[in-house]
Amino acid sequence: MTASPPLRYELLKQDSQTHARLGRVTTRHGTFDTPAFMPVGTQGTIKGVLPDHVAATGSQIILANTYHLMLRPGEKVVAALSELHRFMAWPGPILTDSGGFQVFSLSDINKVTDDGVTFKSHVDGSVVHLTPSGSIAVQNHLGADIIMAFDECPPADAPAEYQRQAVERTLRWAQQCLAAHARPDEQSLFGIVQGGTDLALRDFCAKRLIDMDFPGYAVGGLAVGEGFEATKAVLESVTPTLPAAKPRYLMGVGFPRDIVAAVSCGIDMFDCVLPTRNGRNAYAFTAAGPIRLRNSRFTSDSGPIEDGCDCYACRNFTRGAVRHFFFAAEMLGPILVSLHNIRFFQRLMADIRRAIGEGLFEHWRRTDPRAALGPAAAGKDEGGRMKDE
Amino acid sequence: MTASPPLRYELLKQDSQTHARLGRVTTRHGTFDTPAFMPVGTQGTIKGVLPDHVAATGSQIILANTYHLMLRPGEKVVAALSELHRFMAWPGPILTDSGGFQVFSLSDINKVTDDGVTFKSHVDGSVVHLTPSGSIAVQNHLGADIIMAFDECPPADAPAEYQRQAVERTLRWAQQCLAAHARPDEQSLFGIVQGGTDLALRDFCAKRLIDMDFPGYAVGGLAVGEGFEATKAVLESVTPTLPAAKPRYLMGVGFPRDIVAAVSCGIDMFDCVLPTRNGRNAYAFTAAGPIRLRNSRFTSDSGPIEDGCDCYACRNFTRGAVRHFFFAAEMLGPILVSLHNIRFFQRLMADIRRAIGEGLFEHWRRTDPRAALGPAAAGKDEGGRMKDE
Repeated sequence: MTASPPLRYELLKQDSQTHARLGRVTTRHGTFDTPAFMPVGTQGTIKGVLPDHVAATGSQIILANTYHLMLRPGEKVVAALSELHRFMAWPGPILTDSGGFQVFSLSDINKVTDDGVTFKSHVDGSVVHLTPSGSIAVQNHLGADIIMAFDECPPADAPAEYQRQAVERTLRWAQQCLAAHARPDEQSLFGIVQGGTDLALRDFCAKRLIDMDFPGYAVGGLAVGEGFEATKAVLESVTPTLPAAKPRYLMGVGFPRDIVAAVSCGIDMFDCVLPTRNGRNAYAFTAAGPIRLRNSRFTSDSGPIEDGCDCYACRNFTRGAVRHFFFAAEMLGPILVSLHNIRFFQRLMADIRRAIGEGLFEHWRRTDPRAALGPAAAGKDEGGRMKDE
Repeated sequence: MTASPPLRYELLKQDSQTHARLGRVTTRHGTFDTPAFMPVGTQGTIKGVLPDHVAATGSQIILANTYHLMLRPGEKVVAALSELHRFMAWPGPILTDSGGFQVFSLSDINKVTDDGVTFKSHVDGSVVHLTPSGSIAVQNHLGADIIMAFDECPPADAPAEYQRQAVERTLRWAQQCLAAHARPDEQSLFGIVQGGTDLALRDFCAKRLIDMDFPGYAVGGLAVGEGFEATKAVLESVTPTLPAAKPRYLMGVGFPRDIVAAVSCGIDMFDCVLPTRNGRNAYAFTAAGPIRLRNSRFTSDSGPIEDGCDCYACRNFTRGAVRHFFFAAEMLGPILVSLHNIRFFQRLMADIRRAIGEGLFEHWRRTDPRAALGPAAAGKDEGGRMKDE
């Protein structure tokens, strides 16, 4: 333990035409440039991709899921194995979520009280009780650089009164998380703004969290079915009210279109399972729109997954070979397209950062075809916030 | 096409106490040191392992299966995708087998005649007819550096008369393969010695093949259930009769014990699915014997898979994490143990080569615990020649 802060945010450039900003976050395990995209390593691994290849995509920070790791192998096992950085073989920055989103969306919930949530483990059916302080204790054991407050995540269509109660509860839980946090000199605990699509409620939640002085803030409960315009309205309203000197994280988002819109509102950090989940289904992101590599037109296609891409898959393999690997049920199919998709997202982020740095973000946003890529081209089933990787 | 031979074998050192030999084979796609172990890329990929990681294990030549690739995606698709080196993203030497072993062991055989074999495709149930010249045509399309004659592979317990007929047929087919080979300046066609455990029959087969002047020779039809002592007796008898100026390949073998015994008889090349197939089942090779990484004693084990191993898995991951990946059904479990096992085999081969080079092979064989590792420690179900990867 030292007196140095576990997180430092540097605002390098504020865009003049939008709220977009270029920045850099330094943790005790290194630095990442913002706006940043975090690949999701739900169970302690980005599915199918070895850490050296994750790093080669340009990823600087990755995410792991508290919910999954507490159930298997258990946070104490991870701690005994020298914590998450060693467990995942990822020496750079790591963020863990709180499990809040998962217990509300994934699990068989038995009971939600002011105390916490009781649910059934998807691993062995046992009954688990997770509280705000319990989530923080788990995250203290896991040892990520950035950890998240335990919040209540109502569905998009929850009635107004439920949303209000959920915000009240989220705020009480946020206080409890702060009080429970045992490693504030090593791990940075972010607060999470809830409130559905009610802009006044979002504003209220944000203000109360800002009073609690978290080292960073997330916007949660978006991209859960409320629609792109509603998401944008919330982000445009709440993001600029968050402290400019701290990083801002939009949880579980999303398609390039969503990321670009959120960057315009001043968001710095993103995570999403889209690159890997879609990759495992032979769905490859390209600037010209998604392609499905199982399609028979790729059988003898000797081009790379995406022309001009510099990822390991595109530098080494043909579309025809990748298609074959999917039909032959070879791991290399999912591995290669996941790799490409992560690199696609990291090239997008790098170009966004470059555009902001050069004062050309608004121009870039209007002219780069990737800025418009949303779920429309993808089919409804593959858009939105993923419940699980 | 040039006049330079597609294969050059250099005998660098002949062991004085055994038939073991240190050598080097140069193909049009590079060189490999012998004795060499070839990881198996059945369907055009070493299962789960990207080519850069395969290369990092010290593998210099890899194998692919004609039988699988002709059925899916089809040899003409591979040819249209610039042949196997590009398809597999492996710029180094590649060997393809002829499909003989697979049609006799894997498939629903409808009919074997002097002409060839008629069988049912395991991919779509269609009826396929494979002849010696057909197998060579497929291998000419695939474009590997070393290709194999199409041979008849009787089971270990086949009656003597069947073995004799199979050898006669294998010899006729070998002639047909030589005649059909359309790219002799680019691909080297090896002949395959058959004959079961009948030493006189093996000798007869070898002599006839030597008369045909192949650029290299394989010993086939071993490790198919005849037992270690019988395998050894055949190798001790037949291997020294093969031309010293050409490489010798023992097909589908095997455990370290088998490889060491075969090296002692003068074998130069090996292939086996053991490292990857067992790796996918959490079975890790170590010098002290195999370990099963699903075992609960590894739950919080912070050591590497094998102490002192320099593979990517051992340098980066704990046994506890690898165990977790298997229980969580994450691809990284199979990937990491496959990687380790391939590296285990390549370290074994490198140490064998070093020992021969230093004139210490016999001493090494008597003192290194790996030289005794056979299927006994592994459980019967995971030994012997594997029918398929």
